[in-house]
Amino acid sequence: VYVKNAWYVAAWTQDLEAAKPLAMTILEEPIVLWRAGDRVVAMEDRCVHRLAPLSRGRCEGATLRCMYHGMVFDADGKVVEIPGQALIPAEAKVRTYPVVEKHSWIWVWMGDPARADQALIPPAVGYDDPDWILGHGQLDYKAEARLINDNLLDFSHFAFVHEQSLNTGRAIADTPPTTIAEARGVRFQRWNLASRNAIGDIIPESWMEYEYNLPGILLSLTGTYAPGAAEAANHAHPGDAPALFRQVSSQAVTPMGPKTSRYFFSIGVHRMSGDESARDAMVALIDKAFIEDREMIEAQQRIIDVTPNPKIMPTAHDRGTTIFNQMIAKLIRQETAAAPSELSTARARA
Amino acid sequence: VYVKNAWYVAAWTQDLEAAKPLAMTILEEPIVLWRAGDRVVAMEDRCVHRLAPLSRGRCEGATLRCMYHGMVFDADGKVVEIPGQALIPAEAKVRTYPVVEKHSWIWVWMGDPARADQALIPPAVGYDDPDWILGHGQLDYKAEARLINDNLLDFSHFAFVHEQSLNTGRAIADTPPTTIAEARGVRFQRWNLASRNAIGDIIPESWMEYEYNLPGILLSLTGTYAPGAAEAANHAHPGDAPALFRQVSSQAVTPMGPKTSRYFFSIGVHRMSGDESARDAMVALIDKAFIEDREMIEAQQRIIDVTPNPKIMPTAHDRGTTIFNQMIAKLIRQETAAAPSELSTARARA
Amino acid sequence: VYVKNAWYVAAWTQDLEAAKPLAMTILEEPIVLWRAGDRVVAMEDRCVHRLAPLSRGRCEGATLRCMYHGMVFDADGKVVEIPGQALIPAEAKVRTYPVVEKHSWIWVWMGDPARADQALIPPAVGYDDPDWILGHGQLDYKAEARLINDNLLDFSHFAFVHEQSLNTGRAIADTPPTTIAEARGVRFQRWNLASRNAIGDIIPESWMEYEYNLPGILLSLTGTYAPGAAEAANHAHPGDAPALFRQVSSQAVTPMGPKTSRYFFSIGVHRMSGDESARDAMVALIDKAFIEDREMIEAQQRIIDVTPNPKIMPTAHDRGTTIFNQMIAKLIRQETAAAPSELSTARARA
Repeated sequence: VYVKNAWYVAAWTQDLEAAKPLAMTILEEPIVLWRAGDRVVAMEDRCVHRLAPLSRGRCEGATLRCMYHGMVFDADGKVVEIPGQALIPAEAKVRTYPVVEKHSWIWVWMGDPARADQALIPPAVGYDDPDWILGHGQLDYKAEARLINDNLLDFSHFAFVHEQSLNTGRAIADTPPTTIAEARGVRFQRWNLASRNAIGDIIPESWMEYEYNLPGILLSLTGTYAPGAAEAANHAHPGDAPALFRQVSSQAVTPMGPKTSRYFFSIGVHRMSGDESARDAMVALIDKAFIEDREMIEAQQRIIDVTPNPKIMPTAHDRGTTIFNQMIAKLIRQETAAAPSELSTARARA
Repeated sequence: VYVKNAWYVAAWTQDLEAAKPLAMTILEEPIVLWRAGDRVVAMEDRCVHRLAPLSRGRCEGATLRCMYHGMVFDADGKVVEIPGQALIPAEAKVRTYPVVEKHSWIWVWMGDPARADQALIPPAVGYDDPDWILGHGQLDYKAEARLINDNLLDFSHFAFVHEQSLNTGRAIADTPPTTIAEARGVRFQRWNLASRNAIGDIIPESWMEYEYNLPGILLSLTGTYAPGAAEAANHAHPGDAPALFRQVSSQAVTPMGPKTSRYFFSIGVHRMSGDESARDAMVALIDKAFIEDREMIEAQQRIIDVTPNPKIMPTAHDRGTTIFNQMIAKLIRQETAAAPSELSTARARA
Repeated sequence: VYVKNAWYVAAWTQDLEAAKPLAMTILEEPIVLWRAGDRVVAMEDRCVHRLAPLSRGRCEGATLRCMYHGMVFDADGKVVEIPGQALIPAEAKVRTYPVVEKHSWIWVWMGDPARADQALIPPAVGYDDPDWILGHGQLDYKAEARLINDNLLDFSHFAFVHEQSLNTGRAIADTPPTTIAEARGVRFQRWNLASRNAIGDIIPESWMEYEYNLPGILLSLTGTYAPGAAEAANHAHPGDAPALFRQVSSQAVTPMGPKTSRYFFSIGVHRMSGDESARDAMVALIDKAFIEDREMIEAQQRIIDVTPNPKIMPTAHDRGTTIFNQMIAKLIRQETAAAPSELSTARARA
């Protein structure tokens, strides 16, 4: 089960070409994305005729033709042409989904269309933001999305999973961050004091602020500072203190099936503190680090799969994870409770 | 569920070598084909001893030896040798199936052997027919056989799936063919008028006659004619009008499992209208076209697999498909109804 | 279902390196093997925190660190460090298994630890035995362990599966061996008289003694003799008669899952009758022969998988197989019966 009333990332906006439909599965529902001129369309990827995928179809102006037997759909999902047949039945229609392009992502609302409020799209940084020099990527997981959320809600794993790659040192694991519950997410803040890694290199002092919002969207800002900055800021927000280097990362986890997920991520350097080459170095680093995560999480999934009654034992670092998962569980309960009442309303009407 | 009382194509006759057993699965039943001298044998591919596949065995004259522990079977499925043991139990026997070689195919009857009437083998053209220069191939599908039947019962897909390959133009989709229900199949006829394709080439006028018979056997004859032939024939059968080019195709769909099928096909040119090079060109074309079908149908199967309550919406082109699927459904109902009555008969006898 | 109260082979002792944990699954339970100094540890491969596999962890002296979020476990399975958290809950513990290194294998007891008696480790020959020059290997099977046991309990298959490789001739299939039921296994003895194989080579006279013990451990000794030795020994044990060549083989079958197994095997020549090159020739031979077995057994498994109600028909060669499988069935019944009574005891106590 999933939260339905939420915006899920379906694709990078630049990956949806003008005349080429794109297939994606979100919450087990096959969806075709396509451009009807200026308008982005997200609709059921399943022809009304014999269930062939419309994502194998052809964009023809503001319509999409199924390339099995030639039916044509408009941007509202309605069939507008059936080869060899004059009459088009009124029910010849596929479901469309509310869809928005924002922060370089295509967001699809999977629940009740009447509740699709664009204000619920969580913050992220896209290529349209002039302050940042970004790079991006994506990875498919053979694992439940929840396990990736859990991973991104607890950065203490940096010290172990990414010990050799991200080089944050043990500090990030030795003390939990400040954790603040928000309406639709969790916000974190922390200083990592300067330290030396295993081979003696200095790990600079850094201030991290990151938030993880429903349904699974990370926005992370990190600034590195000269030694003493944490103390100067009284171990709170560094305020206007000048950062040596500032980076941003936006990440999205989209459940495709019960044990398959797609992970979208960008990373960038602030234009005032670095250039394309700094960005390229960071992209290379996270490409490596995110493979480390995937290896661990897919292995974790395989263990869960063979565990009759899987139980977890949360630690001090799991505060954010617990808050977030409770938030999800509560929304699912509310949506499940709402569903029958809609049915009752329908019955009352009848 | 499947129609059992029908002849299914198990293999190309030339693929069953003299001394080499061949494994095939039909309607989820593993079958070994082998030659006991002049006689073709189709029997249960499962040793009575420990269920090892007999298709990994060795032909020894008119017998087949299981190469696990050496049991020997005759052409009636009876065990005739057990190494290390003198006594052979009477029940040491595997099921054999009625089997016929015809039209270059090996046909296996999957139902009640008493009803295995060779007259029920549907028409097809094999290498023994001197009029045609043939070529052939086969493809395995990860899809239910029904979806391939559906595909072959509605040629309007030529205009879309094979738009770039078969080059039939839109005509074939713009009007449905004449469709005639027969006792164990559906017969189709149509003219395709001359047209020009997307790049301006002329698509010649053609008359198509094809039939699709139980359990899933296509025989298709196509003749191309000089412009005006359709009008001259009053848009009916061209009669004795001389064809510019005549081709034939025989195709068979065999369900292996619930979502696996084997597709056998040949194509040929009439000896009076073409030669081996024309045949080779047609084989190359359908090799490409049938991959296009498979890509579409396997994608359709994957969509069906994730659709909770799959529904179709037939069109004017689906008349043949609907007739054929109703015919199959009716036969399955009859066979299912017959099974208990046979049991009742047995009870009455007892 | 499996016999739990038995020693299963988990790995070759030399494959468990000093500082590198090793993952293995036995009876569907994921297990991590590691060395805490001189002590071998077998424990649940599943971190108490979020079920990440400890086999992806790092040995740190006599402890093992989970490399997801850094928890540290001692050799008793107890958590001794949680990064970022001072308190360690008492229940922070994973299950450990009795484990023994013997005959070059690491044996794990999968049942009640109180009953883990080292005297129940069946006989085998390891690299520590100075009489033999050994080589070894292992193979993974996509098949139920029982099918491999069955194979090793009936050597008549040598004449068919290994007709071209092991070259034992038909003798081994034409008469069953002497078969003796033991407390936890079956013992076999037989002479194979000299014969000629298909290409006319002489197959020498040989005396074979082998035993197959719970849960699936073969120890086999074979001596080849000058012609007439069987008759001289009155077709019984050759006693002190000098063998021309003596070989030994130890083999273990470990169920990983319901249809996955790991097969460990060694083969060796007696130091008095051969050298490393004789050993190498034998290893090359069984590497080939055991692939032949696997091909047959995995094919047999696939047939069983599609057989609604699989039945076997034992032969004269199956005496040992039947005894062994009844022994296993009886132990499983006893263990299943014991389980509720333990529960009753617990209830009585409460």
